[in-house]
Amino acid sequence: MEFQEGDRVKVQKNGIEYEGIFMPSTSDHMVIKMDSGYNAGIDLKGATVLVVHKKKDRIISDPSRPKDTVQLKKDLPKVSILSTGGTIASKIDYRTGAVSSQFSADDILQAIPELTEIATFSGRAIYNILSENMKAAYWQELAKAVAEEIEGGADGVIIAHGTDTMMYSAAALSFMIDTPVPIVFVGSQRSADRPSSDNVMNAICAARVAVSDIAEVSVVMHGDTSDDRCYIHRATKVRKMHTSKRDAFRSINSSPIGCVDYATGEIQLFLPYIMRNERQLVLKSSIEAQCTLVKFTPGANPDILGWFVDQGYKGIVIEGTGLGHVSTEWIPQIERATSLEIPVFITSQCLSGRICNRVYDTGRDIIKAGAIEGEDMLSEVALVKMMWALGQSDDYNTVCDLLKNNIIGEINERSTSCNIS
Amino acid sequence: MEFQEGDRVKVQKNGIEYEGIFMPSTSDHMVIKMDSGYNAGIDLKGATVLVVHKKKDRIISDPSRPKDTVQLKKDLPKVSILSTGGTIASKIDYRTGAVSSQFSADDILQAIPELTEIATFSGRAIYNILSENMKAAYWQELAKAVAEEIEGGADGVIIAHGTDTMMYSAAALSFMIDTPVPIVFVGSQRSADRPSSDNVMNAICAARVAVSDIAEVSVVMHGDTSDDRCYIHRATKVRKMHTSKRDAFRSINSSPIGCVDYATGEIQLFLPYIMRNERQLVLKSSIEAQCTLVKFTPGANPDILGWFVDQGYKGIVIEGTGLGHVSTEWIPQIERATSLEIPVFITSQCLSGRICNRVYDTGRDIIKAGAIEGEDMLSEVALVKMMWALGQSDDYNTVCDLLKNNIIGEINERSTSCNIS
Repeated sequence: MEFQEGDRVKVQKNGIEYEGIFMPSTSDHMVIKMDSGYNAGIDLKGATVLVVHKKKDRIISDPSRPKDTVQLKKDLPKVSILSTGGTIASKIDYRTGAVSSQFSADDILQAIPELTEIATFSGRAIYNILSENMKAAYWQELAKAVAEEIEGGADGVIIAHGTDTMMYSAAALSFMIDTPVPIVFVGSQRSADRPSSDNVMNAICAARVAVSDIAEVSVVMHGDTSDDRCYIHRATKVRKMHTSKRDAFRSINSSPIGCVDYATGEIQLFLPYIMRNERQLVLKSSIEAQCTLVKFTPGANPDILGWFVDQGYKGIVIEGTGLGHVSTEWIPQIERATSLEIPVFITSQCLSGRICNRVYDTGRDIIKAGAIEGEDMLSEVALVKMMWALGQSDDYNTVCDLLKNNIIGEINERSTSCNIS
Repeated sequence: MEFQEGDRVKVQKNGIEYEGIFMPSTSDHMVIKMDSGYNAGIDLKGATVLVVHKKKDRIISDPSRPKDTVQLKKDLPKVSILSTGGTIASKIDYRTGAVSSQFSADDILQAIPELTEIATFSGRAIYNILSENMKAAYWQELAKAVAEEIEGGADGVIIAHGTDTMMYSAAALSFMIDTPVPIVFVGSQRSADRPSSDNVMNAICAARVAVSDIAEVSVVMHGDTSDDRCYIHRATKVRKMHTSKRDAFRSINSSPIGCVDYATGEIQLFLPYIMRNERQLVLKSSIEAQCTLVKFTPGANPDILGWFVDQGYKGIVIEGTGLGHVSTEWIPQIERATSLEIPVFITSQCLSGRICNRVYDTGRDIIKAGAIEGEDMLSEVALVKMMWALGQSDDYNTVCDLLKNNIIGEINERSTSCNIS
């Protein structure tokens, strides 16, 4: 029987049946990617192979077209996949064994044909970079591309992104776009060649969210070691909390919006969210990139703040200790920055909890020096918000008001003063 | 019946019996601090009060002596309490209602007389500052004071410290002192005037560890919301993870060494540890304070590294993304620093997991540029270690060797290459 890469096959051997997609392999075993996301390597001696679908029955793709369109069922929702690079977009070069970032959206669909049962997809590569090379100008391009897709009729947008800086990009898009449809960031912590890769589950769960009524920017990633769900994190409350584990992404100072059951596709909700079509599409992608995040450490020299001011930086986030403290020596430099109408945000290196500078002396001095308490915001989100707020207005007081008030879920309302009772 | 502040009393009212220490109060209710650490306010109308111990039977203190010595039972182990300030050392000024940091070790014993059943204590105030004003020179003074106490016969040392920068100071002492006895950092997240204060439980559990055979530098803090235990964190693996919660301290990339049951005083162990008298006392408190921790963020300008180099900084820790990445643009500045024999450490803002720069291109370039992978070390610990290592040797290669190898529990041995399978 003839079968080729990409076909969905059933292999029977020694009474066990394996079903999945026939993958390229250099070994003499047949490799099939099962629906669980795991690959099985099967010695074909004594095995029977049945082709369930031929590849071409499932994926129609014309690489000569600038935009790949894969359309099987016309009544399914339309989802755009924008790729920016990263592990989820990685392909194995089976000649060299190395992970390359060669990618088109079609590659994702070819690797994960199950996606075509959830929506019809159109793909577009925005850029192909490792996420540590991401920068504010790329967030703007990405936001524009997302807005174009929504204007073009997309019912949801999936952004394939490297995991390293995904939280920064996702927070940026949260501020930059009022969206009537779901915008879902997805990545994978392990490349597709690894038996433990999380790319299939993450992509399928992301597609479920893209066709849902959760019209927010979210990060959909592997939920826990049981491999049965992804969490839907609000983009302004999520953080990568492990260098390598698949369940690295965690909501901080918030629960996730919900989770997606991988097997059933069902979404369970934990938080209120913005509904599909509740907002009109608005793109607010102006940004001031010249902002910095400075982490305070004991005895650190405050001259570093002065240097940023002298270099013409427009906004400063200080990641302080505990409730939002820096040493007394830093106060004059904070005062100098704010007197020059350079906003200064204070956040905490504790990550969890809320800033409260009204308990101890240093805290009160920091507020007196004009710094703004970052409430329960993550430092990284505070930096992105600072860049965005400075892009929205030239007026210092307007910018400070934007910083102080919740825009899109980055600040939870405080229940009591400083919440430390 | 006569009773005064500090007496241990039994109060019976409406069939309920309260036992604890009679606290000062401005209200017309009697406030007693119960053994649970909670305060009870009792209207004395219709109540009977029995004095269990008079204050002076329990605490003998002579404020005219430079060093307060409280000794009740001569056969108990000797523990030195060194105070540096912070919430645990805070006292309420009952006239103003404000929390002040006026403190002597005797104050702790007066507030927590139960301590005198665990050991005999001598107290010494090293300084009285808010912990955000801590700096490397203070770590050196503190280390010397601790060494003096151990030389003077202390069976254990407790250091009362503000929680904000406790992890930095505790890590510093781990590197600076080879200790034959327990050195225990303790603090509290809530000041003594709050009903939810954790100072009593933390201090009592710290005393249990100080008389135990765990001859390491540890941080002993409130374990969880059930208020029944403190964790014993290894000082090089602990981090303050919440701005205000009492169970803010967490061991990262490690379990705690163990926990102390508040009710029974029993210690349960989770990890191997260095035994009492296993090591001889050695003080290695030389330090190079001119080091910095730089947090990388997307698009951040690499000139900041150049500024630190030009300012004469001797060591740089970069808190990168994911497995230990920075943007490609940062590589030349890293190369410049290391070519000037300024060591560069790479850690991860993920906190959990291990650095592994052999997976992606940028990572390999960072290693080629001479940076040292921080393994599974916390960024804050890496900064302290950098300062300490540069204090131990003027030779670049010797310093790099110190940085790469585990000194005192800050690096866990890797089980597999980069641990990402």
